[in-house]
Formats: sequence, C-alpha cells, structure tokens
Amino acid sequence: MQIPSKYLEQATEQLATLPGIGKRTALRLALNLHRRDGDEIKTFVEALIQLKTETFACIQCGNISDTETCSICANERRANDIICVVEDVRDIMAIESTETFKGRYHVLGGVISPMDGIGPQALNIDALVERSKNALITEVIFALSPTMEGDTTNFYLFKRIDREGLIITTLSRGVSVGSELQYADEITLGRSLQQRQIFKLNV
Amino acid sequence: MQIPSKYLEQATEQLATLPGIGKRTALRLALNLHRRDGDEIKTFVEALIQLKTETFACIQCGNISDTETCSICANERRANDIICVVEDVRDIMAIESTETFKGRYHVLGGVISPMDGIGPQALNIDALVERSKNALITEVIFALSPTMEGDTTNFYLFKRIDREGLIITTLSRGVSVGSELQYADEITLGRSLQQRQIFKLNV
Repeated sequence: MQIPSKYLEQATEQLATLPGIGKRTALRLALNLHRRDGDEIKTFVEALIQLKTETFACIQCGNISDTETCSICANERRANDIICVVEDVRDIMAIESTETFKGRYHVLGGVISPMDGIGPQALNIDALVERSKNALITEVIFALSPTMEGDTTNFYLFKRIDREGLIITTLSRGVSVGSELQYADEITLGRSLQQRQIFKLNV
Repeated sequence: MQIPSKYLEQATEQLATLPGIGKRTALRLALNLHRRDGDEIKTFVEALIQLKTETFACIQCGNISDTETCSICANERRANDIICVVEDVRDIMAIESTETFKGRYHVLGGVISPMDGIGPQALNIDALVERSKNALITEVIFALSPTMEGDTTNFYLFKRIDREGLIITTLSRGVSVGSELQYADEITLGRSLQQRQIFKLNV
C-alpha cells in the first residue's frame, strides 16, 4: 500500500516499532493522530517525553518511580526481610494487585536468554546479589516466568545468592484457579500432582 | 492495577486514547517506550509532531499530502472526468493498490451517522458538490462502506450532485473473491444474484 505522505509514512514506521503493532495498525493509529488538533498532539507527545525525562529506576529495586526511591521501597511498613525477584515492572503491579505480598521487590529487567543475546550482565543481577548478602534478608522469592528462560535465570540466581540462613523459594506451579482440569497442559498438571497440598477446609 | 509512577500513568492514558488500544496494551507500549533511550524517544515523538505540522489536506480532494496539492491531483496523466468519493485516506491507498482506477478522488472524512452526531455539515461535501458541477466531470463513483451509514450518505450525495449528463455509480456488492459461497451472508449473496453478470471467459 502506497502512503501518500512522507511524514505519514515516517509516523507509521515509528508507531510500528511498538510491540504488537503491525504496519496496518500503525497506519490506522497515525491517521487517528493526524485528525486530532495541535493541542491534543502536544499533550500526547509531552506525556511520552515526560515518561522518559521525569521517571527514574528506583535505586534500590529498579521499579519505575517519580522519585529516587520508589513508593514500595520507601514504605516503612513493608517487611524488610523478604525480596521478590521479578522480570519487569508490570510483574510488580500484577503481584501488588493480589494484595498477598508485603515485602520488597527487585526488578531484573528481563531473563537470561542466550537466543536473544541477553546474558546475566545485561540484567540487574549484581545489585540483587549485594542486597541478598544483607543478613536482614531471610527469604528471596523467584517470581519469574515459568519458561525455559525463567528456569535458567532461577538456576543462575540461585548459584549467585545461595548462602546459609537464606530461604530461596519460587512460585508454585499448578492448575489455574477457575480453569478446567482437562485443558491444563500435561507438564503443569504433572507438577500440580507432584506438589500436591494437604487438603484444608478454609474455615 | 496500581501504576507506580504518575508519568507512566499519564503516558498510558494518552496511549489508551488510540483506537483499539486498551489500558493494558497502553501500559505495555508505555513500558516499551520507557526502556528506549532518549534519542529514540526524540525520533518517535518528532515523527508524530511532523505528522501534524508538515502535512496538509490536499486543497482539491482532501487527501493527506506533504504539498498543497496531493500527488494524485497533481498528476496530469490521470483522468480528469471521473471522481471517486471515499470516506477516508486509507480508502484511497486501498483503491490505489488495486491499480484499477486512474481518475481523481474526493475524501469525505467520514459518513453521515446521526447516531454519532455526524451530519452532512461535518463532512467535506460542499466541495464535492462544487467539483461535480464542472461539466468536465462525467462520472462520480460512490466508494463508501457498504453499511447503513454509507448507504445514507450515498443517498444524500446523490440528491446533492445529481444533474443531467453525470453518471453516478457505486461499487458492486457481491461475494468476495477467494471466499466460500456458504460463508457469504444472505444479503450479500442475494445482491450478488440480483446483480449477476454475463459470464465471460477471460481470454
């Protein structure tokens, strides 16, 4: 499809660099933006610039923050002895919305993936090693994706941070709440059998 | 889901104003942008600004253009006697990629849709009426969407531009090339029977 304007083409190309946005969708988005008035475009664009200029990675955990230390690390009412290691800022939001974890986080910024050229050096691992040396820390939870890359990263992290007195845990694997058993894949179902739990009535 | 940064939230909200982008996707896009370096963001944002500041609506047809008159209207080798009326710039691109039309276009900027508060005044119709008065024009093709709103707009346009010596046509309706007959909806199939064509071998 031939785009009649160089600038429309340029905007389409830029929008198509976003994840999950193909060329056709990008063109649709560009035309939508084109129809807006100047002020709306300004607001739109400023929000994207400020996202870069006004936010920081929290110096402790790597979470996105408007201040040097994020609101979770700055919260003195949260437990100081437990660190939950996640890939991504979105994982923090997901775990926070469960309201079942009241410790601290550590954002790796990805998982080890040799196929994509991501080695341990590319990730926020050294800071985690330093943090976990602190004798105050009694548990580190690996909350990475249940994939090959996640497992590799778990293994690597374990080797780096294992020490006496530190409990290292991972998320349990098992069938999803609300799903039908027959649709669970065999590996997940197998794991949920191996890791079966004593049945308790929730009274 | 609680977003840890005001600026991340702001960028997410802005991205979610794009068509087809929900809150979750917008957050994903915002985090992707956040990971890019400053220069990349600058290029991205400049492309969106230039889309607004450096492009024009062609003074003749309304197509997006980097110059006052778009490349189609400026092309002297295209037929001057036939105008194809479309809703949107994307329709021009779609028709151009068929390489079966060598006339001029006219972009309405939408269709009449009382439900969405879009009346004839909101559309680029007066300019079409003026253009079609020119005795040089012998045919106007209505290439609007085959929807209720498109049909309403066709009817309105017909009333406004009908004159002696002007042929007014619409796109044929019928079964799609390459589709299976049994999956065509009954209205389309009915129309394609009513408007059946003399069979010709393409030799």
